[in-house]
Amino acid sequence: MHIAFIGLGNMGAPMARNLLKAGHTLTVFDLNAAAVASLCSEGAAAADSARKAVAEADFVITMLPAAAHVRSAYLGTDGVLAGVRPGVPLVDSSTIDPATVRELAAAAEAHGNALADAPVSGGTVGAQAGTLTFMVGASEALFAQVRPVLAGMGRNLVHCGGTGTGQVAKICNNLILGISMIGVSEAMALGVKLGIDANVLAGIVNTSTGRCWASDTCNPWPGVIETAPAGRGYSGGFGADLMLKDLGLATDAARSVKQPLFLGALAQQVYQAVSHAGDGQLDFSGVIRQYLSAADKESQQ
Amino acid sequence: MHIAFIGLGNMGAPMARNLLKAGHTLTVFDLNAAAVASLCSEGAAAADSARKAVAEADFVITMLPAAAHVRSAYLGTDGVLAGVRPGVPLVDSSTIDPATVRELAAAAEAHGNALADAPVSGGTVGAQAGTLTFMVGASEALFAQVRPVLAGMGRNLVHCGGTGTGQVAKICNNLILGISMIGVSEAMALGVKLGIDANVLAGIVNTSTGRCWASDTCNPWPGVIETAPAGRGYSGGFGADLMLKDLGLATDAARSVKQPLFLGALAQQVYQAVSHAGDGQLDFSGVIRQYLSAADKESQQ
Amino acid sequence: MHIAFIGLGNMGAPMARNLLKAGHTLTVFDLNAAAVASLCSEGAAAADSARKAVAEADFVITMLPAAAHVRSAYLGTDGVLAGVRPGVPLVDSSTIDPATVRELAAAAEAHGNALADAPVSGGTVGAQAGTLTFMVGASEALFAQVRPVLAGMGRNLVHCGGTGTGQVAKICNNLILGISMIGVSEAMALGVKLGIDANVLAGIVNTSTGRCWASDTCNPWPGVIETAPAGRGYSGGFGADLMLKDLGLATDAARSVKQPLFLGALAQQVYQAVSHAGDGQLDFSGVIRQYLSAADKESQQ
Amino acid sequence: MHIAFIGLGNMGAPMARNLLKAGHTLTVFDLNAAAVASLCSEGAAAADSARKAVAEADFVITMLPAAAHVRSAYLGTDGVLAGVRPGVPLVDSSTIDPATVRELAAAAEAHGNALADAPVSGGTVGAQAGTLTFMVGASEALFAQVRPVLAGMGRNLVHCGGTGTGQVAKICNNLILGISMIGVSEAMALGVKLGIDANVLAGIVNTSTGRCWASDTCNPWPGVIETAPAGRGYSGGFGADLMLKDLGLATDAARSVKQPLFLGALAQQVYQAVSHAGDGQLDFSGVIRQYLSAADKESQQ
Repeated sequence: MHIAFIGLGNMGAPMARNLLKAGHTLTVFDLNAAAVASLCSEGAAAADSARKAVAEADFVITMLPAAAHVRSAYLGTDGVLAGVRPGVPLVDSSTIDPATVRELAAAAEAHGNALADAPVSGGTVGAQAGTLTFMVGASEALFAQVRPVLAGMGRNLVHCGGTGTGQVAKICNNLILGISMIGVSEAMALGVKLGIDANVLAGIVNTSTGRCWASDTCNPWPGVIETAPAGRGYSGGFGADLMLKDLGLATDAARSVKQPLFLGALAQQVYQAVSHAGDGQLDFSGVIRQYLSAADKESQQ
Repeated sequence: MHIAFIGLGNMGAPMARNLLKAGHTLTVFDLNAAAVASLCSEGAAAADSARKAVAEADFVITMLPAAAHVRSAYLGTDGVLAGVRPGVPLVDSSTIDPATVRELAAAAEAHGNALADAPVSGGTVGAQAGTLTFMVGASEALFAQVRPVLAGMGRNLVHCGGTGTGQVAKICNNLILGISMIGVSEAMALGVKLGIDANVLAGIVNTSTGRCWASDTCNPWPGVIETAPAGRGYSGGFGADLMLKDLGLATDAARSVKQPLFLGALAQQVYQAVSHAGDGQLDFSGVIRQYLSAADKESQQ
Repeated sequence: MHIAFIGLGNMGAPMARNLLKAGHTLTVFDLNAAAVASLCSEGAAAADSARKAVAEADFVITMLPAAAHVRSAYLGTDGVLAGVRPGVPLVDSSTIDPATVRELAAAAEAHGNALADAPVSGGTVGAQAGTLTFMVGASEALFAQVRPVLAGMGRNLVHCGGTGTGQVAKICNNLILGISMIGVSEAMALGVKLGIDANVLAGIVNTSTGRCWASDTCNPWPGVIETAPAGRGYSGGFGADLMLKDLGLATDAARSVKQPLFLGALAQQVYQAVSHAGDGQLDFSGVIRQYLSAADKESQQ
Repeated sequence: MHIAFIGLGNMGAPMARNLLKAGHTLTVFDLNAAAVASLCSEGAAAADSARKAVAEADFVITMLPAAAHVRSAYLGTDGVLAGVRPGVPLVDSSTIDPATVRELAAAAEAHGNALADAPVSGGTVGAQAGTLTFMVGASEALFAQVRPVLAGMGRNLVHCGGTGTGQVAKICNNLILGISMIGVSEAMALGVKLGIDANVLAGIVNTSTGRCWASDTCNPWPGVIETAPAGRGYSGGFGADLMLKDLGLATDAARSVKQPLFLGALAQQVYQAVSHAGDGQLDFSGVIRQYLSAADKESQQ
């Protein structure tokens, strides 16, 4: 299949590479010439605008940092809708707000194209390994159409409902994740301060009603889970600034429907404090450092 | 073994009953005559004070509602320490603050007795079935001593560290639980409002990084988990007022060591709003109703 | 002076009317034909686009609901910059985010025009009476230029600094206001519940360190301040949904500089709960109703 | 009049001294021998217990750090009620929870004594100058009785209602104060970050709806208010740890009546973070430092 791929960043480039490996023909576009050149050296063709990239394509995928980029990639004078043939399926894998997705889907529909939102989880590791999870918002028919292509980039393809629900699923999952990571951080910091061993406490939590991914897989106390970012100085993993962005999407979406999010909004501020303190590049489990005094941090080492 | 059991409430009575079944000799004390009579009809002896109950005992267990009751049960003029023989092990299974435990342990030690804190999880169902989890704070030697007796009431006996750490473990676990239940409630309420099906959303969360007991076992959206309290009008389960009490213990303990708990303190207020609205007797997953407008609640049915 | 006035809503219409009274020549534009007709009956001329309205003007004022409208009013193909003569001063009196102001100011500057932001306080009453406060972000020279015109609509003209600082001043003031109103509401609800008379409590606060506008001028407890909205069912005044909007501007601006706002973000959620409960049209002091149970509300009457 | 004065700390000692100056006969008690000796050198008599101190007294005043001390001073075997003659008025000027006040008042009444709670504001400066404000909870008759004596130590005597309402008034005022200081801190930190001058911003707030004691008298930004603690490194003033204590009283009292305090509880945690960071001895306006990065703090100097 001839696929146009727009957006070759840390996530998009390895995703596009997996499509090449799967035997697809690729035309790519990105403002970063080096990223384009790298893909071309592996067999992709380059276009100098989204409009030109999609001109001959049977399938379009976009993978961009934020809503403003996606909006411009689809609606700009050199954008996707200015060049794509009616009937070609469009997939946006960026993580953005559901309202923008629905607005773009309406514009696409007016042009004769169906748009699916398909944000991913799994990070750059999953993007490279082709083991991403795609949360797909699309009609049944469109989901059936996009599924085979996405299968070349991910392992777990979940149909979440109509257009926009892929974003809703991702945002809501990360809302829980962002909150529970702070909950675990507060509990670990408090417990150790009150005299219990961190490993013993985590062991109890992980077999009890407090168990959660944030505790049993990515525990923020160094050394509790050997493979967790906490054990390597909070490097790698899912950056605090990315969690901050996703909580921003959650509170913005909540604002649009006047839904209060007491803990979600406060969690957002706590990650903002992480970023404000200069730790936004660390894994989001580094939020526990907000709960440790200078002396606590030393004793942790 | 001759055991004195003080406190025959919803938890204490079935626990004492299991000790009788395990073949122990029991002397019981409670201000509630009916509770005492019921145990006596099954073979226990009654005493009219804690002091008298422990006079001949080789082992003492207390199971009371709050720190004030425990303090008075041990230190009162008719209390445990006024009557117990030196060397007899003391076990308090109430859920109270670690500081009170340590203070009582010091008073007990001065009298020649070792005290273990052993709060439980598993609720009245676990108390009746003898499947409670005991989180035990005790020296190695004391833990070895109390273990065989506790095994008659529970299935999972966890040694958490020195005296007081049983309470620390329970408080910290429930801090995570109370926070994550609100996180799940905010996410479910938001997601449904934004157009995703509740079952689909929960399915994604439960296989992703948001997974937690509050979502995959006790999900607050009615019908998502068949056996969860949400499916039966939030009846049964772990009452919101009990969660409120435990978060009060967590924030009080945090205050004693000047440890900030941003989300924990806010979560406490959200459960307080549940109680303020008259829903304190509901399962704590009923907290989701704080996030549903009158119209939302109707559409949920 | 020939002034173009864009935006004739609840605030804009009376402001424009005051400019007519002050002797200026006015050309107005608004999508609402009735609002335009009303102004024309008082002597204004109508234009059918912003671009045409500004064509002959010596001075431009815009007063619009939100950033999207302002952006389109200035940058649209039929917008201000498409029609205005270089050198004409532009004043935006809308309440929007400082970042958009600065972006528009840059676009205006490229076109040869200086733009001042001049959000107001004083509400529709002040707009009609010509007693508004203008918080003006502008160079010294531009402030000197716009001052005489603004003086026709307001009494208090404050120069806050360079472009954008008018919005910053308004947002920061309302951040304090939104927070302190909730603080007063929590204190009044708690105090009355604990047995003190509301008037006595307010009297003490208002002569002590808790004193603030939210208590001594707009106290949320009915009857404490005779002229406050609380005394007339929270009608009139500054709507909770407007406070919600302004706290949204504050938290968005904070996000852009990674500044945590713990209380500000939580306050925003509390007003969102007001809106969610269907009370968004009430004066923002109606937020106290979030703290009163059904029984409390009855006893208040 | 012969007055027994129990508690000669930073507040109690200067208050007692003012009673001596007013011509009263004093018998004092405190565990701190130096404090007692100092008062005796100025004419007071010493007693070696509260019980002995009150034996001959016509009036009793207690001024102690926390509820546990007050409880023990009244109810202990060597306490006030063990020695005081029936009919003698009792005044507790400590800042404690209203529930304890009411419990002690009941015990006093059973003994034939009326107890008033009369917490103060004005700090050590007011205590020395005799310009304290007393917030008095007492019957009309008791208030009439205690008024002349309190007038020797303070300038502003406010009758708040029945016993306990003095504490309610103080707690509720400080709840507003603690919240509004954080509100002002968030607004000043945000405003400066967004480019407005701190003095200009404060000037606008202080003449607008955001005005409050925390901004116009004790502004947390250094230099804005010349006499404020912020200008002298946050020394002097009302310590953050004292604010933390008072917010603890507020949230505890709220818990006793199941009243949610969303912002109050979060404010308490923010001051706890101040204390956790080692700044608990600073004036509570030092809370703004929680909102300033290391770089921000430097640029502030």
